[in-house]
Amino acid sequence: LIEPQLGENIGTAARAMLNCGLIDLRLVRPRDGWPNRKARAAAAGADSVIDQARLFSTTAEAIADLTHIFATTARHRDMVKPVITPHEAAVRLRTGDARGEACGLIFGRERTGLTNDDSVRAEALITVPLNPRYSSLNLAQAVLLIGYEWYIAADETANETLPLGDGRLATSGEFQEFFDHLDRELETADFYKVDAMRPAMRRNLRNIFQRAGLTDQEVRTLRGVVARLSSKRGGSGR
Amino acid sequence: LIEPQLGENIGTAARAMLNCGLIDLRLVRPRDGWPNRKARAAAAGADSVIDQARLFSTTAEAIADLTHIFATTARHRDMVKPVITPHEAAVRLRTGDARGEACGLIFGRERTGLTNDDSVRAEALITVPLNPRYSSLNLAQAVLLIGYEWYIAADETANETLPLGDGRLATSGEFQEFFDHLDRELETADFYKVDAMRPAMRRNLRNIFQRAGLTDQEVRTLRGVVARLSSKRGGSGR
Repeated sequence: LIEPQLGENIGTAARAMLNCGLIDLRLVRPRDGWPNRKARAAAAGADSVIDQARLFSTTAEAIADLTHIFATTARHRDMVKPVITPHEAAVRLRTGDARGEACGLIFGRERTGLTNDDSVRAEALITVPLNPRYSSLNLAQAVLLIGYEWYIAADETANETLPLGDGRLATSGEFQEFFDHLDRELETADFYKVDAMRPAMRRNLRNIFQRAGLTDQEVRTLRGVVARLSSKRGGSGR
Repeated sequence: LIEPQLGENIGTAARAMLNCGLIDLRLVRPRDGWPNRKARAAAAGADSVIDQARLFSTTAEAIADLTHIFATTARHRDMVKPVITPHEAAVRLRTGDARGEACGLIFGRERTGLTNDDSVRAEALITVPLNPRYSSLNLAQAVLLIGYEWYIAADETANETLPLGDGRLATSGEFQEFFDHLDRELETADFYKVDAMRPAMRRNLRNIFQRAGLTDQEVRTLRGVVARLSSKRGGSGR
């Protein structure tokens, strides 16, 4: 963070970093000095990031050991330098990291952002694609969005998961027993009025329950429902 | 937003929405009533979202016209329901939207999140993959991350662009003239000491400048540099 002004913003940026598993915070000339009580208070829970933060008097010193530097800016400057998306930055950061090349992100001061003298040190500028008519982000939000892209670039969470807790999905046999039970009761209740329609109606019904991806517990619950409904009507009870 | 407590959080959530081009804010039983002065103050610039916000007394009424509902939650509940990533949610929201099926996201109250009675209304739960040891997000940050995924799902910004302002990239001919100029001066300065190495050295040098992707202005600047350096040494001056 280059010349951050409010301690609160350093603290919320530290939280956003830790949300994304990032811990190496470097501060260049924070306006109110360092350490900063307000930064610590706002960091709530991310104290480790604040504790390890390092103070530098120039941007050059802060980044001296890094091989890849990306600068974040909402504004396109009068500077011929590639502008990349947060996703592309994440890919490059991960690639550099895999090669053992230390990488860093620089963020400018609140409102005014990075000076040209700082931006020029970066190999590319990152601009977050947002509503062009309302794209202002505060410091912690900018850190969070870019950190999030970095985090998910290595995250292997499946796009969809079905959490089962202590349960398990029903086996095909359990499902079939439930469906046979339902089917028998429907026969008894004269649900399949037209013989010719029976196969299609049965398929449609089966698809409904099949799609739900039932657990063993849910299969038992449904069997209870069927038994209960049938008993009211004086069904087969099986 | 279901039962949001602080007006400030409604305001910052409205800003995060507008950042992502989202404007249809629905409020269910906000603790401090509606309208709310603090919400407006915190919305700075996103007043349009606050102005259009609608108030509902139940979650059911707030979502009655929607076809797809996704609920955001950091916690896995004792509920068998698919859990999806923000990216997957964004794809499904865009897909629903393209089919003319209205879609909505529900967010619970600060700290306690959604109740099970509200979560159950959703077709899937969204969990943001973040550092499992520190994943707490405030309301506006959660809105921003999920809104951001929604926004970029339709964004066609190239991963890398080179902004040229009023300038343009140099033509191949302009580049060649510069390189020939440099080459002549290097010959004059006896840079290519060993004849056998000349082709490789020339290729290496050319690659450096070629990789930079020079603009016409930069080519002129570099020609000036070469001319200036050569004149000090009494070069060919061409």
